[in-house]
Amino acid sequence: MDAGCLWMTGLPGSGKSTLSDLLLERLRPIGVPAYNLDGDVLRRGLNSDLGYSDRDRSENIRRTAEVARLMVDAGLIVVVSLISPFRTDRAFARSRFATGRFCEIFVDAPLSVCEQRDPKGLYAKARRGELAQMTGIDSPYEPPEQPDLHLLTDVESSAACVQRILEWLQGPLAQTARR
Amino acid sequence: MDAGCLWMTGLPGSGKSTLSDLLLERLRPIGVPAYNLDGDVLRRGLNSDLGYSDRDRSENIRRTAEVARLMVDAGLIVVVSLISPFRTDRAFARSRFATGRFCEIFVDAPLSVCEQRDPKGLYAKARRGELAQMTGIDSPYEPPEQPDLHLLTDVESSAACVQRILEWLQGPLAQTARR
Repeated sequence: MDAGCLWMTGLPGSGKSTLSDLLLERLRPIGVPAYNLDGDVLRRGLNSDLGYSDRDRSENIRRTAEVARLMVDAGLIVVVSLISPFRTDRAFARSRFATGRFCEIFVDAPLSVCEQRDPKGLYAKARRGELAQMTGIDSPYEPPEQPDLHLLTDVESSAACVQRILEWLQGPLAQTARR
Repeated sequence: MDAGCLWMTGLPGSGKSTLSDLLLERLRPIGVPAYNLDGDVLRRGLNSDLGYSDRDRSENIRRTAEVARLMVDAGLIVVVSLISPFRTDRAFARSRFATGRFCEIFVDAPLSVCEQRDPKGLYAKARRGELAQMTGIDSPYEPPEQPDLHLLTDVESSAACVQRILEWLQGPLAQTARR
């Protein structure tokens, strides 16, 4: 498979990390060099100087896009799992890649479902007023208007979602590479 | 070969880019996943918001070290070619890697030789007063005290220097990986 960036955007709890992990479990055994750029991990290293203001969120995404770009240049399939709530930031990310090398994946579930899952307890914290600027609660999420893939994680199984991503890798991305 | 970070530090014109390019030409044909994080390239992307003040130089190096760390985690041999003039910044870079996974390579040539080579015309510009904060001219370079490799590019040939790097990859790095 060819190098490219799979950019997963969605609310906290929508399933981005779950799908990233599953996807990498599928790719690694078949020898495909792939890496997950996880927003939480980045915030402990490269982006540890950034907070959650709109400005810092944008800078967070800018840097992540640049790192993903370098990694794709190095030949990897890079899976980014990042809330990335703003359209302009995601458009910037896309602009850093050649046409067809970037896949915007909308990992979508209703807020009520995400809040029920609450894998990190963030929604509970936000509702108790202990966490400000929580996307979906007191910070907006702008859903993609034309994502390359739209995965409904409250309806489709994780396995089915991963299958659709694999199909994109073997279809549109592979066609781009052959051109 | 195992993943690790080769950190080349030295004056402008000391030979960092030349050695990086040659090293990658040796590694790629034998199927070793390797990538060159070049300071100049990074300044056009990830670090495009940074200047040349001491503070910005440090932040430049911090981010580069974090990206190198992610790439090594992804399984690559990462060659960083960056003036990185300050000891504390290079010590920070080393601190982000497991013991034995980081090789500080002092790419060393006398200032007079670097200035004569002047591959980018930067010394000439600095001498004409058109470029401020040029390392070696009006900004200090702190040479490594205990580099893992010390390459004298005005004495050794590029091929010999690259050979010594390859020996480090097959020796100390490989031993670390087997532990």
